[in-house]
Amino acid sequence: MKIYRANLLWTPTPEKFEIIPHGYIAVSDEGKILSVGEQNPIENLSEKSRNSIESQSKVNASLGEVIDFGDKLLIPAFNDLHLHAPQYRNNGLAMDLELLPWLNTYTFPEEMKFKDLAYARKIYTRFVHELWMQGTMRAAIFGTIHLEATQLLAQLLQDAGLGAYVGLVAMNRNSPEDLRNSTEQAIHDTIALDEQLGRNGLVKAIVTPRFIPSCTEDMSHALGVIARERQLPVQSHLSENISEIEWVKQLEPLSTCYGDAYNRYGLFGQTPTLMAHCCYSDDKEKALMRANGVYVVHCPTSNYNLASGMSPIRSYLNEGIKVALGTDISGGHYMSMLRIIQYAIQTSKIHYAQSHGQVPFLSLSEAFYLATKSGGTFFGKVGSFEPGYDFDALVVDDSYLNFANYSLQERIGRFIYIGDDRDIRVRFCLGKELKEPQI
Amino acid sequence: MKIYRANLLWTPTPEKFEIIPHGYIAVSDEGKILSVGEQNPIENLSEKSRNSIESQSKVNASLGEVIDFGDKLLIPAFNDLHLHAPQYRNNGLAMDLELLPWLNTYTFPEEMKFKDLAYARKIYTRFVHELWMQGTMRAAIFGTIHLEATQLLAQLLQDAGLGAYVGLVAMNRNSPEDLRNSTEQAIHDTIALDEQLGRNGLVKAIVTPRFIPSCTEDMSHALGVIARERQLPVQSHLSENISEIEWVKQLEPLSTCYGDAYNRYGLFGQTPTLMAHCCYSDDKEKALMRANGVYVVHCPTSNYNLASGMSPIRSYLNEGIKVALGTDISGGHYMSMLRIIQYAIQTSKIHYAQSHGQVPFLSLSEAFYLATKSGGTFFGKVGSFEPGYDFDALVVDDSYLNFANYSLQERIGRFIYIGDDRDIRVRFCLGKELKEPQI
Repeated sequence: MKIYRANLLWTPTPEKFEIIPHGYIAVSDEGKILSVGEQNPIENLSEKSRNSIESQSKVNASLGEVIDFGDKLLIPAFNDLHLHAPQYRNNGLAMDLELLPWLNTYTFPEEMKFKDLAYARKIYTRFVHELWMQGTMRAAIFGTIHLEATQLLAQLLQDAGLGAYVGLVAMNRNSPEDLRNSTEQAIHDTIALDEQLGRNGLVKAIVTPRFIPSCTEDMSHALGVIARERQLPVQSHLSENISEIEWVKQLEPLSTCYGDAYNRYGLFGQTPTLMAHCCYSDDKEKALMRANGVYVVHCPTSNYNLASGMSPIRSYLNEGIKVALGTDISGGHYMSMLRIIQYAIQTSKIHYAQSHGQVPFLSLSEAFYLATKSGGTFFGKVGSFEPGYDFDALVVDDSYLNFANYSLQERIGRFIYIGDDRDIRVRFCLGKELKEPQI
Repeated sequence: MKIYRANLLWTPTPEKFEIIPHGYIAVSDEGKILSVGEQNPIENLSEKSRNSIESQSKVNASLGEVIDFGDKLLIPAFNDLHLHAPQYRNNGLAMDLELLPWLNTYTFPEEMKFKDLAYARKIYTRFVHELWMQGTMRAAIFGTIHLEATQLLAQLLQDAGLGAYVGLVAMNRNSPEDLRNSTEQAIHDTIALDEQLGRNGLVKAIVTPRFIPSCTEDMSHALGVIARERQLPVQSHLSENISEIEWVKQLEPLSTCYGDAYNRYGLFGQTPTLMAHCCYSDDKEKALMRANGVYVVHCPTSNYNLASGMSPIRSYLNEGIKVALGTDISGGHYMSMLRIIQYAIQTSKIHYAQSHGQVPFLSLSEAFYLATKSGGTFFGKVGSFEPGYDFDALVVDDSYLNFANYSLQERIGRFIYIGDDRDIRVRFCLGKELKEPQI
């Protein structure tokens, strides 16, 4: 067991931050949270249990000393539920086109490079380092069609101690010849990745059709079958851009909506499913997402950068649809979930303004909840400070921001809006302190 | 004279970046740019002028050695045309209300503290440090109603070597008693500030009515008179929020639009004028801005954070209205103009999406132009690398971002979208290298 002391801030529910000044959090050797409170749990042991141990010093030695982070903040680490590792080189670039021409012009040519394992190592090493740097301890990641490169990505994540679902991308139409895999290959490689990674570690496989326009009926069907047979989760894209939605209507005339196309293939909540973007989901699609427990992964920076639009997150929440957040690099330009929290709130404020105040905007605690506990549910008990949860946490030194008697409530707001990776001093994933990965 | 060598990137026009790899820029002892080019201007001296000087080494000694920044980027420094120094403490806080209740609940109480000069020194010292840190060499700044504190702010800016217009805020209604000055006091104090600062330095006074709801007819009229008599520029707020605009209609029934209220008092382009926000300017207001040469100062983060809306910058540009950018702290949450460039582009992309592609979005070079040369025109010849311009520049070390054979065009994009103050290594204002101000 280890015991940490710091200013604890977390969101067990979206409504508000739970805050304990100089609180204690006890963590088992397996990395699970045992207790969270105002008192040192060792000092709270009953007299009986105290007496059963010879001395207090021995208690401390056997149960772990208190590691005191002083006046620093301790918060749940971030969970990024949608991003593309092979697009890391393109961060901050190539944002002068909408989604479909952007894919063809900038993104597919970059992803083709991952046939070269040396190139993949160079880029994926930096990608994993940045996940660590930004305090993102869990992520749902798109790789490419290349098995070796995707296995390498998974290995680098494991080496860093990070948690992730990693997807071998399946795509066999409407992309360059060199960036297509056959249905057989995609199924084979997805199974190979799953078997390599197994189910007991922090890094696992996820079924990853790129999106409907990239996958023939045959491929989508086969992916749905292995998702069900192997009980693998699914990730893809949904209703991101108007032209894309029109295209899907032509490609899938039998589907009642874009989401229904996935649904017909067993790729829409039959196993846990992430759908990125959802800027334009109609009532049918929303009903299907709610009924099937599909997650909307809100990627606001990407939706701005690719001029896609603004996802109406408040309406999804009101309707009981699960929502998580994603950086979606390189449609999104930056891998910090702090920025995504800001943009999620800001986007909801434009919906508020454009609805003349009818649609309430997201509060800070709601958006933080989406980036921690809500996204964390995809990985198990992750993203909150509650007994039984994985201890995924960040130690934040905001002393340079804290020059004028700020409350802890104010300090978390300032860290989210003004802070950055410089302020994150210690990172824990499943109880383990993660050292900086080499680049 | 000094000669600097680096990768030069700037926007003499909005359409594209001018780029000279390892170019030379010669700067006079007065801080003015003498030449910009691919060749060392000393080596280009004609034989005749060479011969008139005894030896090349003496040329170098007298004219200045080349200071070579290697592979770093050298770009024009940023100009922030709207921000509130006394709101610096509130950055990243208090963004759960719209403009009018936000002013009453969070902003006015904070500004009242600046009666206390010790408090003003504490906050303004940090504010000036952050301007320097973020590479903002020129700014148009709101102070408070307090003369001493505003004079102190001007002094700190002068000490740091930064350029600014500093405003003594005039407001005599619809605010707490302790945050009102009389017309006489506001005029007296504005003149006192102007006389203290004079017209020859980098820091000057600007007439600053808070906004129409804060100023009686009497006060606005008197401010218009001194602006004209003393030929002082003007800064204020315009058409930021729907409720504000409705209120102004009630307060100023004779005005044809919000802007016309300022215009009737001689505060709308009769001298150079900055109007922040302009989210909802109608055709009449736009015509008046164009006719009078009024600058729209686009503050996109503030417009998001206060749920004001989105200013249609592309339409202003198309109609020939001057546009600059501002961080508007603490409505805006962060003082980096890099972020403002991002948000300006992103906001224009939402207009593009919502207009179904009818309104083109801002390009990277256009938004950079707004943050440098366009805003710079308010200060004279500032914001570009052209002969006769003030040498305001930033040396950017983007080496950690430049890991994969990026072009200079790509490097400036990545710095703008992913970089931050860490990358800014040297800052020049009017040719002088500015050392870090103490905090």
